[in-house]
Amino acid sequence: MLFPEASAASGGHAFAVRGGRPLNGQESTVAVHLDQLNLSTGKKARLYTLFYAHGPGRGVGMFLPVDQGLEHGPRDFFPNPASQDPEYELRLAEAGNFSAIVFHIGLAEKYVHPYAGRVPLVLKLNGKTDIPPADEAFSAQTATVEDAVRLGASAVGYTLYVGSPAQDRDFAQFAQIRREAERLGMPVIVWAYPRGRYVEEKGGQLTSYAIEYAARVAAELGADVVKVNLPEFDPERHARTPKEYSQRTFTEEEAVRRVIAAAGRVPVLVSGGSQVAEDEVLRKAELSMRCGAAGLIFGRNIWQRPWEDALRLTRQIREIMLEYAGK
Amino acid sequence: MLFPEASAASGGHAFAVRGGRPLNGQESTVAVHLDQLNLSTGKKARLYTLFYAHGPGRGVGMFLPVDQGLEHGPRDFFPNPASQDPEYELRLAEAGNFSAIVFHIGLAEKYVHPYAGRVPLVLKLNGKTDIPPADEAFSAQTATVEDAVRLGASAVGYTLYVGSPAQDRDFAQFAQIRREAERLGMPVIVWAYPRGRYVEEKGGQLTSYAIEYAARVAAELGADVVKVNLPEFDPERHARTPKEYSQRTFTEEEAVRRVIAAAGRVPVLVSGGSQVAEDEVLRKAELSMRCGAAGLIFGRNIWQRPWEDALRLTRQIREIMLEYAGK
Amino acid sequence: MLFPEASAASGGHAFAVRGGRPLNGQESTVAVHLDQLNLSTGKKARLYTLFYAHGPGRGVGMFLPVDQGLEHGPRDFFPNPASQDPEYELRLAEAGNFSAIVFHIGLAEKYVHPYAGRVPLVLKLNGKTDIPPADEAFSAQTATVEDAVRLGASAVGYTLYVGSPAQDRDFAQFAQIRREAERLGMPVIVWAYPRGRYVEEKGGQLTSYAIEYAARVAAELGADVVKVNLPEFDPERHARTPKEYSQRTFTEEEAVRRVIAAAGRVPVLVSGGSQVAEDEVLRKAELSMRCGAAGLIFGRNIWQRPWEDALRLTRQIREIMLEYAGK
Amino acid sequence: MLFPEASAASGGHAFAVRGGRPLNGQESTVAVHLDQLNLSTGKKARLYTLFYAHGPGRGVGMFLPVDQGLEHGPRDFFPNPASQDPEYELRLAEAGNFSAIVFHIGLAEKYVHPYAGRVPLVLKLNGKTDIPPADEAFSAQTATVEDAVRLGASAVGYTLYVGSPAQDRDFAQFAQIRREAERLGMPVIVWAYPRGRYVEEKGGQLTSYAIEYAARVAAELGADVVKVNLPEFDPERHARTPKEYSQRTFTEEEAVRRVIAAAGRVPVLVSGGSQVAEDEVLRKAELSMRCGAAGLIFGRNIWQRPWEDALRLTRQIREIMLEYAGK
Amino acid sequence: MLFPEASAASGGHAFAVRGGRPLNGQESTVAVHLDQLNLSTGKKARLYTLFYAHGPGRGVGMFLPVDQGLEHGPRDFFPNPASQDPEYELRLAEAGNFSAIVFHIGLAEKYVHPYAGRVPLVLKLNGKTDIPPADEAFSAQTATVEDAVRLGASAVGYTLYVGSPAQDRDFAQFAQIRREAERLGMPVIVWAYPRGRYVEEKGGQLTSYAIEYAARVAAELGADVVKVNLPEFDPERHARTPKEYSQRTFTEEEAVRRVIAAAGRVPVLVSGGSQVAEDEVLRKAELSMRCGAAGLIFGRNIWQRPWEDALRLTRQIREIMLEYAGK
Repeated sequence: MLFPEASAASGGHAFAVRGGRPLNGQESTVAVHLDQLNLSTGKKARLYTLFYAHGPGRGVGMFLPVDQGLEHGPRDFFPNPASQDPEYELRLAEAGNFSAIVFHIGLAEKYVHPYAGRVPLVLKLNGKTDIPPADEAFSAQTATVEDAVRLGASAVGYTLYVGSPAQDRDFAQFAQIRREAERLGMPVIVWAYPRGRYVEEKGGQLTSYAIEYAARVAAELGADVVKVNLPEFDPERHARTPKEYSQRTFTEEEAVRRVIAAAGRVPVLVSGGSQVAEDEVLRKAELSMRCGAAGLIFGRNIWQRPWEDALRLTRQIREIMLEYAGK
Repeated sequence: MLFPEASAASGGHAFAVRGGRPLNGQESTVAVHLDQLNLSTGKKARLYTLFYAHGPGRGVGMFLPVDQGLEHGPRDFFPNPASQDPEYELRLAEAGNFSAIVFHIGLAEKYVHPYAGRVPLVLKLNGKTDIPPADEAFSAQTATVEDAVRLGASAVGYTLYVGSPAQDRDFAQFAQIRREAERLGMPVIVWAYPRGRYVEEKGGQLTSYAIEYAARVAAELGADVVKVNLPEFDPERHARTPKEYSQRTFTEEEAVRRVIAAAGRVPVLVSGGSQVAEDEVLRKAELSMRCGAAGLIFGRNIWQRPWEDALRLTRQIREIMLEYAGK
Repeated sequence: MLFPEASAASGGHAFAVRGGRPLNGQESTVAVHLDQLNLSTGKKARLYTLFYAHGPGRGVGMFLPVDQGLEHGPRDFFPNPASQDPEYELRLAEAGNFSAIVFHIGLAEKYVHPYAGRVPLVLKLNGKTDIPPADEAFSAQTATVEDAVRLGASAVGYTLYVGSPAQDRDFAQFAQIRREAERLGMPVIVWAYPRGRYVEEKGGQLTSYAIEYAARVAAELGADVVKVNLPEFDPERHARTPKEYSQRTFTEEEAVRRVIAAAGRVPVLVSGGSQVAEDEVLRKAELSMRCGAAGLIFGRNIWQRPWEDALRLTRQIREIMLEYAGK
Repeated sequence: MLFPEASAASGGHAFAVRGGRPLNGQESTVAVHLDQLNLSTGKKARLYTLFYAHGPGRGVGMFLPVDQGLEHGPRDFFPNPASQDPEYELRLAEAGNFSAIVFHIGLAEKYVHPYAGRVPLVLKLNGKTDIPPADEAFSAQTATVEDAVRLGASAVGYTLYVGSPAQDRDFAQFAQIRREAERLGMPVIVWAYPRGRYVEEKGGQLTSYAIEYAARVAAELGADVVKVNLPEFDPERHARTPKEYSQRTFTEEEAVRRVIAAAGRVPVLVSGGSQVAEDEVLRKAELSMRCGAAGLIFGRNIWQRPWEDALRLTRQIREIMLEYAGK
Repeated sequence: MLFPEASAASGGHAFAVRGGRPLNGQESTVAVHLDQLNLSTGKKARLYTLFYAHGPGRGVGMFLPVDQGLEHGPRDFFPNPASQDPEYELRLAEAGNFSAIVFHIGLAEKYVHPYAGRVPLVLKLNGKTDIPPADEAFSAQTATVEDAVRLGASAVGYTLYVGSPAQDRDFAQFAQIRREAERLGMPVIVWAYPRGRYVEEKGGQLTSYAIEYAARVAAELGADVVKVNLPEFDPERHARTPKEYSQRTFTEEEAVRRVIAAAGRVPVLVSGGSQVAEDEVLRKAELSMRCGAAGLIFGRNIWQRPWEDALRLTRQIREIMLEYAGK
């Protein structure tokens, strides 16, 4: 367990509310209710593809992100060299019945055609390499919403580095994309990532403070879906967060519920991060869904595994998701 | 009382003039006179919604700002966890008959629809997180006037960081928005906030010097309504202001009247700031209205309180406002 | 007298030529000859309004600038609190028959309507606060030529910070405005101000070197009228100017004639600067006109005075101007 | 041999896959299969010109780059002064039957006309001088895709400095060009060059780490063809690469195959770099083709040689290429 | 003589080739051959005006630049005060039958009309003051190609600071202008000036290395005519240039021929620089023409002289030019 037991101080809070509906643990229904999000017809149609027509369905989504070749480079493919070929992930997405695959424009242009329609596409619209440091993290636009429309994508993805010194450029760039997406009925999934030197000063990118803030910012700026990391508790880092946070602690479940609550009505996808053991993957999936996530977006934990292991794990995750999905 | 008694030196000044009409304390009428502002038909119609058709009416406005989730993060919701759900504030705005609620685009898109028409909307068009320091404060554009028109908003809000080293970008960004607003008949409410390292050097953001300057800048650049903080007197900080200010002192009432006079014919809304005791809230409301404010824009002092407390306080503020409102 | 007697070295120069016509002291005619400036029909019509139809007329102009509320803040209104209300200056401009009043967009929008047509308007198109230091001075655009056209203005004003490290952005911004003004037949008055750390290194903003250079730059870049400060002689500062200047001295009259000659065919308006005694104001007015200025643009020296003093001084200045005006 | 023998650790990897087809040494067919790249009609037609109708044909390409006059200056022409005249390279390209010549806009406009149609043109769209250091390398746009279309070019070239601190501007600039190229059916060849101070910190621009990453980034961002340098092994530099790389070594052939595999389905051209001995040129050509390159782009190694030597070497390279070309 | 005798090492080079035609000293014909430059009809017509219809004609051009009032300020007019009036230079250009006068937009708008058609105009499109240091030299755009077309100009001028840290902005700005010029058939004359702190580190702006590189860059980026300074030999500075240069020396004539050869087919104009003695002016003119220059662009060496001296010198230069001109 990553978090200490909740202190008495925080135990009494009851703000784990989602879309106005109380979330009472496993009983709650976490599905994305498309009619509660005031979506345009185009956005609704495309989100239906992702959360109902493909993948686990019933309002939950399971996404296969493949943007690590840009974000981290080919070294992410070392644990499973076959994964360097994007066709590997496309086959996996089809065989595992993922809700969608996430590609940057280059891979989408060159590889998706044979799978078009069968494997929904989320086109990532910005990115960067991890060669320069992340002190002033900014992820530049690499494609447009019109590219996504042209390729028949069901959503676009955007990385927002919340708290970066470059947030002004980031907000402005995102606002342009949001508006183009509004015009074309394209849903926007925001990778809400706290980042940059001042995030580091205030405890880093994995504190409850930073992740809740990032989720809220994505919701404030107009995300249709938000992708977050789960917080990790570290006493030294926690102590550097603003006093409203550093004065209290949360159970792990509280911490996860809080992140999801911070996004408000915006459906939340939980990231997988770097590869961990299978049981930890499953625990994280279960925890996320139990706490109200609308889906999972696990990449390296899937495609860094050999084909059969990946498919078996995918099936297990899918079962967990459907336990918590809407009817 | 925040300010010392006025010195003889300043006592003789008689510049507490507003729109050409003398303001003799409680006798004066502070209402926004829409026909004196040379407004386009669209701007007049929308300001009528805010200052006459909704809220206290009779030319005064009471606004509920909910942009703190972006500006400060979820920690602002800790005193009243229910307030994290924007629906809480929408219900409060409706129950308390506020003139309008202030949202960023994301919340406006996802939450306002059920309240459309019943609760007027002010769409905030720029924002930032408070994670990086404010030395070179700049608030990037997050939405457009066309977004506001599309959502049926009655005004847009813009944060102008007066005196920031980034003022050149800020002025240019504001000028674009002002022009788009002119074209579409959309009133612009300017959050006129002195900010940045040189404001700090010259006494900080709460001196009379800084706030009067900020109010004037908003008026010079084309605000239709201006939102200010009330000045707070601090001898050490006051001493760092330019000599025209540091050589004299004002009573608190003088100080407030001066800020409102600095905005000229542009109606002034007074900010509430962080939560204080109820009687202090009421005192600030009374002081502001007595000194010629056209309205109040109190957020945390309202929604950080439990539902019933918030509504009772709202009713009390409203009564004060109507005492000073136009006929 | 601000300048030493001219040295023999400079005494023999005879470059006090203006528009090809010799300027022999009081005998010369300083009026703006609109047909010598190769103006478009729109520019000519609007300059006619300023230099013939309003104000002193006969080709000379007397302008009332009111941009100090933005450039310096409300402290400029302390000597005469009534001046904080822009209506005060509008009444003064009308009563004193000024050629035009100079406002930023906000004041122009909210205050000019009752005076439209009676008091010509020069719309200032860029500005800044003086809160940050002027080391890298840049004045951002706050309104457009189309705003000026829409408001019926007779000219636009632009502050060009000659020699600033930000000159590249300034030149580019000005070029855009110049072209828009060309397209719409709107005259451009350039506030040609040497500024920034390298101007300071080379003697500062009041040397003959800096002001002559600034006047020339305005002419090179396309000003239709140029506004300058008069040079002030300071031995220590003079010594830091380039050797072509530091090796010689000028009489005050030579210095003023040189600035006006530096602008070539472009009419020159002389700034008033901060408030000085009445006789000094008159001396400066007479000196400027005698040396070939096309007009005066005195703000604080007018509106910081009480109403009657301001009007009396205005009348006296006007008489001086007409002594030197064209027939 | 530039690389040590492969360690046992890496020997077992089998990721040398290209476009889904195994590359088993000399037996493999390396030709560009235009129907596997999901190209638009315009891109296919133009790539056909380069890889089939001109040059060696049968799906392999031999390009003559002449952008060194901009990138390094005239000193690159010292070994063979005749090469300073672009006509020299045009004649060489024609006599040696190169697939295309690569020029910047100025040379393309002034020199290509007599050769139009006979010598295909790749128009380089960005460039820089090497006078400033490359710490924050960025190559500014010098021409557009429309220029290329107007000149009848068969492709455009773009230098992407992967890992540079300026990568955000680079990605954004490239994205614009990629879209314009998509709209006009123009193939984009990306010079994928790791560069900048952080690349240097992590081992420099010639490590397997850096070059594989660069090749992948080009593929992710939408290159149609990618141009790379071959990695060079240097123990000290290798040790500074991320642990996934520094923990293992590759044979030279493995290293080359890995780079080509990193580009995925995108055809790879291998750069020649600075002049080396003839046998080394031929060895490099053979190695590249054997490992799956789609072609070679040798400049200085060709035109820095006297005419006859250059032609003879070109013929030898061509023979090697055709050994590995498709049928 | 500015250069040492050529060393044996460089004596054998034979790259003094121009447009494919050998330049054998005085026998060569240096005229601009408009049909060899692949010019559009509009560019050809306008260059015909400059190199055939006006000035010396027969393919050589003699230009009178008057941009120093912006680049250096009025101090450049001190040697001949009459020259401060642009009309002086216009009369000189007409009386001396120059090929064209070079003005910035402001002077072109206000002064050229009476001379339109009689004195061709080259409109300079960018500029700066010399008040800030040139470490990061960049010359901002001050006018557009459309301005030039509107004013009936025969060419535009652009200063390119080759090697400046700001080269990325410069290249991008130039590319825009080049394209607009292409669209409108307007020739572009590039002032190819090595500049900035890294040029200084590598020997400064007057080395053969820097000037040859600058000439080549102008040709690569699309100049139609290039303006250069002649190199000056300084052993200490020469030693700091790249080894390809520092290892050899050139005779003065070799050095000049090399610069002209570096521009390839692009005609070269040689700058005059600051005022020198008459015989040195004539020697420079003769040297330039003998080495293949297409013309001269002497400003201060002409208009800083009294009227009669200027005209006599102009006639002498013209005679030299015609000795080398085409038939």
